[in-house]
Amino acid sequence: MDRRFNHMELKKYIKELLISSGIEESGAEIVSDVLIRAELQGVSSHGATRIGVYLDRIKKGLINKNPKIKIEFKFPALGIMDADNAIGHFAAYNAMKEAVEKAKVYGISMVGVKNSNHFGAASYFAEMAVRENLVGFVISNGPPATPPWGGKEMYFGTNPLAVAIPGGERGPIVVDMATSIVARGKIIKAAKEGKPIPSGWALDADGNSTTDAKEALKGCLLPMGEHKGSAITMLIELMAGLLTGAGYGKQVAWQYDETAGKGNVGHIFCAINPEGFMNLEETRNRMDSFYDEIKEMPRAAGYESIRLPGESKRNNLANNTENGIKINDTLHNTLLELGNEYNVEMPDAI
Amino acid sequence: MDRRFNHMELKKYIKELLISSGIEESGAEIVSDVLIRAELQGVSSHGATRIGVYLDRIKKGLINKNPKIKIEFKFPALGIMDADNAIGHFAAYNAMKEAVEKAKVYGISMVGVKNSNHFGAASYFAEMAVRENLVGFVISNGPPATPPWGGKEMYFGTNPLAVAIPGGERGPIVVDMATSIVARGKIIKAAKEGKPIPSGWALDADGNSTTDAKEALKGCLLPMGEHKGSAITMLIELMAGLLTGAGYGKQVAWQYDETAGKGNVGHIFCAINPEGFMNLEETRNRMDSFYDEIKEMPRAAGYESIRLPGESKRNNLANNTENGIKINDTLHNTLLELGNEYNVEMPDAI
Repeated sequence: MDRRFNHMELKKYIKELLISSGIEESGAEIVSDVLIRAELQGVSSHGATRIGVYLDRIKKGLINKNPKIKIEFKFPALGIMDADNAIGHFAAYNAMKEAVEKAKVYGISMVGVKNSNHFGAASYFAEMAVRENLVGFVISNGPPATPPWGGKEMYFGTNPLAVAIPGGERGPIVVDMATSIVARGKIIKAAKEGKPIPSGWALDADGNSTTDAKEALKGCLLPMGEHKGSAITMLIELMAGLLTGAGYGKQVAWQYDETAGKGNVGHIFCAINPEGFMNLEETRNRMDSFYDEIKEMPRAAGYESIRLPGESKRNNLANNTENGIKINDTLHNTLLELGNEYNVEMPDAI
Repeated sequence: MDRRFNHMELKKYIKELLISSGIEESGAEIVSDVLIRAELQGVSSHGATRIGVYLDRIKKGLINKNPKIKIEFKFPALGIMDADNAIGHFAAYNAMKEAVEKAKVYGISMVGVKNSNHFGAASYFAEMAVRENLVGFVISNGPPATPPWGGKEMYFGTNPLAVAIPGGERGPIVVDMATSIVARGKIIKAAKEGKPIPSGWALDADGNSTTDAKEALKGCLLPMGEHKGSAITMLIELMAGLLTGAGYGKQVAWQYDETAGKGNVGHIFCAINPEGFMNLEETRNRMDSFYDEIKEMPRAAGYESIRLPGESKRNNLANNTENGIKINDTLHNTLLELGNEYNVEMPDAI
């Protein structure tokens, strides 16, 4: 059974769990906001379901609950943050905040982050820039998921890319994608249900293309866009991981594997001030014209409408803010158990 | 029959053709260098074969042979160039040069370009940054080629993306790709040969997926990576075209269509100083370790080796520099005709 919860109450609950685990208030506020915004946007894969593993890693000392985050600007507009193994959302929020402030002065700014962890949905941080009328650009590496093109071992992460561009009355354009062809979760689901997966999603352990979901789980996920997508995945690994001084490839730990040590994840945050190119009002008008032009284009076979990136999330956000966030039985039970363990009271369904 | 030409002689020939057409020496030097470097790298699609259309557009006044290029930095690290309808290579070179100089001071810099034209191979400009130990990032829009995802009309360009990252002894990593699934030229070739094209490459005029190359030419090319690749193509269109004040979508002219007016193409050039993240020596060592790790990984079925982006171009460059650039009969005849028209003497084959 699905229950719906008021998003403010659910956020408060998650925040209190984090505070009870030893995370300080400002960090708990950010993490809970990132998770709840994902829930509101309908991206439950990056929402409340993640709190369990975060709390577990905090408890085991695999995430540093009292990090001394250091950020250094060797150049005026380019910074590097050592996140001191902080929870990723907290590091990411502070890195993007710096990039936003510097971009207002210099027109563009980038902050690299090393020694970090999973930060939730990348678009959250790109949207921080948009709220300040800037373009936001976010990339991160992650634990091995896809091979280099032509290889058969997991090496690159699912390496998300999020870009948010300020819009006019129709709202901003927000792209947020993993650069793997699908989430690993989809293959796990197919394996559980005994269903095949489409060709092109994964390789088996011997490096052959497979449609057998169980064999795929022994092998590796493939990147989107074949060799071209693989090159983009690699660029993200190099920029966010290798160049920042974070881990890259097999040096990045999977957060569900306790034996793999600290996350060693790297990110890049960039903010760009479009007023350096053109008057903001004109940009907003052009964005609206673009939106309308796209929506009115003739459709390909099988498409009733053309959706712009971020559009369905915006609709979900309006709907879930009004009607509450849907939580299934399994997650509800997990949340109740965590409430018992951390002595926090779970809110009632609405 | 293929002939080989010394690359210095061929470059001089192309440069003289451009000068004879009215382009000043410094511009002719850049354009010829961009075209010859593509030839040396084995990317003949962006090499000498393009000189004909450039000269034709210069002659017809569709490219401005005496542009007054203006570049303005409203913010210290973010600039906008009005290329005054210059030949794209000249605008691009000067824009990246500015971005490189500013990135040395500010750590990162971006220059947007509007009112420009086709600039040849994007990697040329990304490599300019690498030679200064910076990361180079280049995107451009172009005339309509792919639809927005779910549409059936050409709208976005083939929108190239090039990124070059400084390396160590193994050399830099240089990615250069169109974000369309293939070049339109491959479909034209299949249509001429009466061969089918793979599913997923194109839609017919009614918006149905087609494997018939002739029908595909009446419809549109598809982006790489389905909806994800389409989102990346769109981001490039928005950044390079819409935000810079250049044309976007159907406002961008195809250079082979004389009736479509000036190009109205937009580009973005960005340079990033990795020393803002980490000591350059350490970065170089990590890049070499990465290279070696990738090359030694076990291969997927059907792959003899794992190639890193830019690797085969580097091999071609060494080979063609030594043995000359291969020119086929058709192109040789075109070049000879241009030599007659512009009163420049074509060098002899070697």
